[in-house]
Amino acid sequence: MRILVANVNTTVSMTEAIASSARSVASPGTEIVGITPRFGADSCEGNFESYLAAIAVMDAVLAYPEPYDAVIQAGYGEHGREGLQELLEVPVVDITEAAASTAMYLGHRFSVVTTLDRTVPLIEDRLKLAGLDQRCASVRASGLGVLELESDPQRAVEAIVEQSTRAVSDDHAEVICLGCGGMAELEEQVRAATGVPIVDGVRAAVTIAEGLVRMGLSTSKVRTYAPPREKRITGWPFRI
Amino acid sequence: MRILVANVNTTVSMTEAIASSARSVASPGTEIVGITPRFGADSCEGNFESYLAAIAVMDAVLAYPEPYDAVIQAGYGEHGREGLQELLEVPVVDITEAAASTAMYLGHRFSVVTTLDRTVPLIEDRLKLAGLDQRCASVRASGLGVLELESDPQRAVEAIVEQSTRAVSDDHAEVICLGCGGMAELEEQVRAATGVPIVDGVRAAVTIAEGLVRMGLSTSKVRTYAPPREKRITGWPFRI
Amino acid sequence: MRILVANVNTTVSMTEAIASSARSVASPGTEIVGITPRFGADSCEGNFESYLAAIAVMDAVLAYPEPYDAVIQAGYGEHGREGLQELLEVPVVDITEAAASTAMYLGHRFSVVTTLDRTVPLIEDRLKLAGLDQRCASVRASGLGVLELESDPQRAVEAIVEQSTRAVSDDHAEVICLGCGGMAELEEQVRAATGVPIVDGVRAAVTIAEGLVRMGLSTSKVRTYAPPREKRITGWPFRI
Amino acid sequence: MRILVANVNTTVSMTEAIASSARSVASPGTEIVGITPRFGADSCEGNFESYLAAIAVMDAVLAYPEPYDAVIQAGYGEHGREGLQELLEVPVVDITEAAASTAMYLGHRFSVVTTLDRTVPLIEDRLKLAGLDQRCASVRASGLGVLELESDPQRAVEAIVEQSTRAVSDDHAEVICLGCGGMAELEEQVRAATGVPIVDGVRAAVTIAEGLVRMGLSTSKVRTYAPPREKRITGWPFRI
Amino acid sequence: MRILVANVNTTVSMTEAIASSARSVASPGTEIVGITPRFGADSCEGNFESYLAAIAVMDAVLAYPEPYDAVIQAGYGEHGREGLQELLEVPVVDITEAAASTAMYLGHRFSVVTTLDRTVPLIEDRLKLAGLDQRCASVRASGLGVLELESDPQRAVEAIVEQSTRAVSDDHAEVICLGCGGMAELEEQVRAATGVPIVDGVRAAVTIAEGLVRMGLSTSKVRTYAPPREKRITGWPFRI
Amino acid sequence: MRILVANVNTTVSMTEAIASSARSVASPGTEIVGITPRFGADSCEGNFESYLAAIAVMDAVLAYPEPYDAVIQAGYGEHGREGLQELLEVPVVDITEAAASTAMYLGHRFSVVTTLDRTVPLIEDRLKLAGLDQRCASVRASGLGVLELESDPQRAVEAIVEQSTRAVSDDHAEVICLGCGGMAELEEQVRAATGVPIVDGVRAAVTIAEGLVRMGLSTSKVRTYAPPREKRITGWPFRI
Repeated sequence: MRILVANVNTTVSMTEAIASSARSVASPGTEIVGITPRFGADSCEGNFESYLAAIAVMDAVLAYPEPYDAVIQAGYGEHGREGLQELLEVPVVDITEAAASTAMYLGHRFSVVTTLDRTVPLIEDRLKLAGLDQRCASVRASGLGVLELESDPQRAVEAIVEQSTRAVSDDHAEVICLGCGGMAELEEQVRAATGVPIVDGVRAAVTIAEGLVRMGLSTSKVRTYAPPREKRITGWPFRI
Repeated sequence: MRILVANVNTTVSMTEAIASSARSVASPGTEIVGITPRFGADSCEGNFESYLAAIAVMDAVLAYPEPYDAVIQAGYGEHGREGLQELLEVPVVDITEAAASTAMYLGHRFSVVTTLDRTVPLIEDRLKLAGLDQRCASVRASGLGVLELESDPQRAVEAIVEQSTRAVSDDHAEVICLGCGGMAELEEQVRAATGVPIVDGVRAAVTIAEGLVRMGLSTSKVRTYAPPREKRITGWPFRI
Repeated sequence: MRILVANVNTTVSMTEAIASSARSVASPGTEIVGITPRFGADSCEGNFESYLAAIAVMDAVLAYPEPYDAVIQAGYGEHGREGLQELLEVPVVDITEAAASTAMYLGHRFSVVTTLDRTVPLIEDRLKLAGLDQRCASVRASGLGVLELESDPQRAVEAIVEQSTRAVSDDHAEVICLGCGGMAELEEQVRAATGVPIVDGVRAAVTIAEGLVRMGLSTSKVRTYAPPREKRITGWPFRI
Repeated sequence: MRILVANVNTTVSMTEAIASSARSVASPGTEIVGITPRFGADSCEGNFESYLAAIAVMDAVLAYPEPYDAVIQAGYGEHGREGLQELLEVPVVDITEAAASTAMYLGHRFSVVTTLDRTVPLIEDRLKLAGLDQRCASVRASGLGVLELESDPQRAVEAIVEQSTRAVSDDHAEVICLGCGGMAELEEQVRAATGVPIVDGVRAAVTIAEGLVRMGLSTSKVRTYAPPREKRITGWPFRI
Repeated sequence: MRILVANVNTTVSMTEAIASSARSVASPGTEIVGITPRFGADSCEGNFESYLAAIAVMDAVLAYPEPYDAVIQAGYGEHGREGLQELLEVPVVDITEAAASTAMYLGHRFSVVTTLDRTVPLIEDRLKLAGLDQRCASVRASGLGVLELESDPQRAVEAIVEQSTRAVSDDHAEVICLGCGGMAELEEQVRAATGVPIVDGVRAAVTIAEGLVRMGLSTSKVRTYAPPREKRITGWPFRI
Repeated sequence: MRILVANVNTTVSMTEAIASSARSVASPGTEIVGITPRFGADSCEGNFESYLAAIAVMDAVLAYPEPYDAVIQAGYGEHGREGLQELLEVPVVDITEAAASTAMYLGHRFSVVTTLDRTVPLIEDRLKLAGLDQRCASVRASGLGVLELESDPQRAVEAIVEQSTRAVSDDHAEVICLGCGGMAELEEQVRAATGVPIVDGVRAAVTIAEGLVRMGLSTSKVRTYAPPREKRITGWPFRI
């Protein structure tokens, strides 16, 4: 099967890192295709950028010319998953939700450790809307921007380990979700330092998407995610 | 003061209806300016269209050349308010929230009567995220599309009265919120037929926005709605 | 229009301060009338005093001889609003709720900073009942009694600034509500010290009450707030 | 021990019925003293009357000249329990809460069947504040006023049986709480007709109050229910 | 009346301590019978042991040869109460719930102080399922194992006093529940040290069970707790 | 990899049906081993039987002599998953939770259609504890016992289709979970009749368990699910 893994920002190296992480757990026979938006921010760290990414991901997925079996939206705490579900017949998996639903199989409570403090409320809101917030002990910020994860991985590990350790000791988390599409590389080090299971949303999403495809399941079309009605749409898709 | 009232769809007659409704409760000295997006759907009835509208409203508001004191996002159950709050220094009021917070001053529980069944979950999700869902007795659909409200107002009144009556008798609503930016015209008839207060979100939003401006209050910038960080944004604003 | 602003305690200087605060945001043409209860405590700092105030405010409002368009109950965290809504045809706005619903337009979460620790649960309970508690980050006590706010304003500012600062840094509040009818004078200083929007419930209530009147909206009478049934009432109104 | 059972209305025959119900489950050696307020409504069916009752019960209890070991507030869904807790050193038990906490030992969910529809929200609010609402399947109204329970007991039984039966079949209640201080007489008939346990709040409250006394437990005074501070109180107690 | 008080572990001295505590508040005429499981762990400190205890308590109660009027399951945070309710006609009271519902009559919020950190989630889960968690400020662990309470009572008091004091000051608890069946002996010392009411679940359960019996109330059999259907059961009761 | 799929009842034909269903979605290279308890009921339809099953599943899994990579507890709404997590190093997946977390990727709300009405509260309780209840529209009973699913499959399909159809139309479910380990055979027919995705918990659990194993993730051992402490256990494992 072929799974599209859509980065939410325009940074191609991050798309590659995400796709590589996805491939590390994909089954034999699963092709992972990384998708980079044509427009938007080079990192998503707030609502404006996230809304832009929501549309940019839809744009990029719709423009993909080959058939595919599932789509992963690989932005942590980002808007847009519901739109993709309307537009597509194949299942759509958001990594924020994939990490949370996976973590809930591993411990009584989980925490998310993300990048900047300002993105904490976005993640909290996505978990709340998804109904996956009740066993979330906390969402903590490492204080590092998205692109700093790539540029300074050692500092990233330290900051994430520090917040993860506090989540375990102070918030009673038993599992840590890495709250950014580009954090998968750090998983092993954070696990070693904290002693708790570390969930990378991209990897979790791949296993869930594969499972849905294998079970022949896709988005229900009877109500919320019915295809858009026929109507006049101006200016879409965008000329960039 | 000047308040921008942003329609979420591209139908200019609907912008005019919304602006007219806004003017009906604006204080002397308040100028209401209707804004129509440059792109998007001619009516918003689902997530894809709503996400497009979120960006289109930001685009339209940023393009407005004159100073203004507040912005009203005049789409019921639509995405995007948080993005506007990041981008602007002036207060932003969403009509879904304005109707709800107003209804809560008028009765123990309120219901929302909206257009199509498929938009019910969008409204429920917005109220949930806003923390304004606890006293919401129900969100009910009249079964009419957004544009049918304009094209067949008599049928619209009948359908909305029917659902409002059921909301009062079956769901124990004591107040009805008209769940669409373009329903204000119907307010008087629905009130007469049901005997309960009817809240139009656009009008409610005008009074709230005026109040915020009069109190000198605007969006907090310390965390969630801090201005976007300096970064590379590709393809924005869109060429349409 | 004329709005009655009912103090909940018998301290006339506090009524005057509240009315003055209300006037500072009232529209031209709005007359603010401060009302002082005939009986009760000289400050409300607990349930017994608050229940007494609930009845005293009803007594005082019913005794007011002229017509009026709305009533504001200007006690933070006090009982009684529902009784006024039954007795009156005009809209009733409680300042605890007005501050909260206003704060929710300004930030992702808000905190309330009030007087004594013992009044914290009263405020929490009012917000819970009103369904306005979900975005409340915390209710914090400054440790000062109600009347100390008047007698030692400098110490009051310091104590409130301290708790507000902690609410922002520790509880992730983005907006502060001043949790006492008599705190409005301190607004500017607290805002300057904390950098976040400060909401005074009395001012917020005035803008909301004006808005309701301008929209022609008042309390729904179909169920919870229907007028009391005809029956024998002994000893009311009280001879004081 | 001596337990004061305070009626919330001024109808002496109802006080007697409540006290008689209380005596039916009191332990040997427990003296039940019925208390009737000096002022207020002859039945409590709404917020104004309930707030008046809150103060009237405090007035009546404080006026009781002999020692006592516990107080039961015998109004269903009424305000005021918190005030009594501040004023008294002995434990205070509210019958709304006593019925609910008792019902939770008997079935997975319970319903309350009360008098008029307008009192339903009061009961819902009391249960919500008490944190005892999560297993409440519904609060249903029989449509009879409080005093009709006494004047037409047969019709009362029929109406309550009808709503109880619906609560069991439609709302999945497994236990019914009689939602009025004066309904205890009907218990046996409702039980026979529905086949589920029927909880009378007054009786439940007696067993709970006795238990607290026997364990030597009373209201915590460290915060919420600390005694009122010393201060000037005008006009209290009332001259009636 | 006769009440069976079922210990959840196989330590007979603990059964005796529990029964002794139960007797200290039982009414004249109430016979308390301590029951010790035939199998299981000598202390319950986790889910495996708790599930084993659930079955062991059912086994022991069913094996009891004389008539009885109520059963108390005297394990804090343990599984199994629902099973007993199906199997028995008499009322069943769990001490976790008894402590919580009792504490709610005594203060605005309560905390539970238990043994090991690993049992905290069990208690939280039981309170959540029982719908008694909303006024629970915290569940805190003293760090002592169940059997250390008996073997080193002085250290137990110190550890429990320390956590209770923190619960009051940091979590705003106004009442403390002793979170283990075997803690009753420590009650007086913890009360003296903290100044708040201390609730022992066993004692609370006795008063509640007596009350239910006196009111003639028992488990509803219409749905959740209907007797098991006739069917083939293999290997039960166990040969030990 | 090898996955143990543990039936919760002693009916071997049901174990075989469950294992067969599991195999239908297992990856090449995954061995599914069906496990039948040595003791317990021939079908689980209530709390007593479910508690017995909890222990019986632990007993059966611990007795399995070969290595394995994950365990699936294949009872819908049954107790016991937390105990297995303590006892095992490999991941444990409960089918109630697996169905729910899978359904949440497919629609805005899901319903569960189960066997007897008396098992509805068990399922509701498991979803509540798992924090997976917020998007559950309803749990509905078909009225058929567990073993009737096998003995009268046509009637089972009809009853399940009827309740599923109502869940979609009345409760706004967009996805249906088959609420019994033995319902997988019916999946295709129910899907055809309702037009919404149908989730079988066993199949869902297989994909999730495989995913966890592939990611190298297992139960966190830092707190709730730490291995049982060393202690004296009497009578375990049972002699049957």
